[in-house]
Amino acid sequence: MQPIGADVLAHVHQLYGAQSRHIDEGRAAGWAATFTADGEFRSPSYPEPAIGTTALVEFAERFAAADRDAGARTRHVITNLVAEPAGPGALTVHGYLQIVRTAAGESRLLRMTTFTDELVADGGTWRVRRREVRRDDAR
Amino acid sequence: MQPIGADVLAHVHQLYGAQSRHIDEGRAAGWAATFTADGEFRSPSYPEPAIGTTALVEFAERFAAADRDAGARTRHVITNLVAEPAGPGALTVHGYLQIVRTAAGESRLLRMTTFTDELVADGGTWRVRRREVRRDDAR
Amino acid sequence: MQPIGADVLAHVHQLYGAQSRHIDEGRAAGWAATFTADGEFRSPSYPEPAIGTTALVEFAERFAAADRDAGARTRHVITNLVAEPAGPGALTVHGYLQIVRTAAGESRLLRMTTFTDELVADGGTWRVRRREVRRDDAR
Repeated sequence: MQPIGADVLAHVHQLYGAQSRHIDEGRAAGWAATFTADGEFRSPSYPEPAIGTTALVEFAERFAAADRDAGARTRHVITNLVAEPAGPGALTVHGYLQIVRTAAGESRLLRMTTFTDELVADGGTWRVRRREVRRDDAR
Repeated sequence: MQPIGADVLAHVHQLYGAQSRHIDEGRAAGWAATFTADGEFRSPSYPEPAIGTTALVEFAERFAAADRDAGARTRHVITNLVAEPAGPGALTVHGYLQIVRTAAGESRLLRMTTFTDELVADGGTWRVRRREVRRDDAR
Repeated sequence: MQPIGADVLAHVHQLYGAQSRHIDEGRAAGWAATFTADGEFRSPSYPEPAIGTTALVEFAERFAAADRDAGARTRHVITNLVAEPAGPGALTVHGYLQIVRTAAGESRLLRMTTFTDELVADGGTWRVRRREVRRDDAR
């Protein structure tokens, strides 16, 4: 549909699979490293954006701590990825993100969200420069 | 598993991601354009198939209007895509389609469905010539 | 993110899409054939691992029989695939697996699981040599 090569799309799919695993398994530094050093994470679920590696690491650490404190396990389920060219070495990626939480033996869809990311080729690796999350329950 | 090239599969993934976004964001003409001009959409959730661009646009417009009237947001979550060769310039694609609806602050899996599509290479772009949806609650 | 070629990743995506369809549609032999002849399936949802083609076929037959007996339909929804090189002709694949069950007209997320697979190139086809499933409700 879009003139994105298979190699680029393969990298994009790998990036999103790996990124969710990083935060869901509590690897805060690994998750932050899927963003550029000045990467931005913006979501209406949180009062402020996380901007830059230090803030992104702290964000992921708080996420893991919240799960631990609640005896819960939260997963970021990524689907419906679409990548579009956005200039040299840049992509816009749209996707769906389901937040699935398991607690007290029950798994449920906590939240349906979508996102738009700006990706840049950063030393041969695609990274997120800016993420904007939208919540379907916040129209 | 199937002898489908990476470039073709990349196009297929892009097509399905873009198609869901079109209907879920209310872009009826964009959604209809992911089908051929004589494209067919058949689903047990609706009394009649939608056949041809005009009917497909109207179908997507009714879908968006139903969400607006209900104060809801409905998403088409695509997974488990498998593409198989179906002759020159043609593919059969199987996939899973979860209908996720958010209303009154709650998101839930409204319906689990699967589909089989006939795709054709239409002027360099893969489009759906025929979609058949099946509902798991209608065995 | 990982140095996996687009062609390999395309095969991996096809494998997982096809594998879920095999078991969910009751094709026990087809599902077992997505594993190597000595393939292993290990999951905390079942008391014993299934090892080797005969045991894998029986596992899939029991799965289908359980659905029939319960008047249910169970789906394996695969997302968040990440493939990593694991030596010549071998891959490690991580993924998320949602078990979605439809019964009595309602579809729900029965279980959120993740898995790690060892894949091997078996006569030109990627197959699972070992699968380890983890349940989020069993931390």
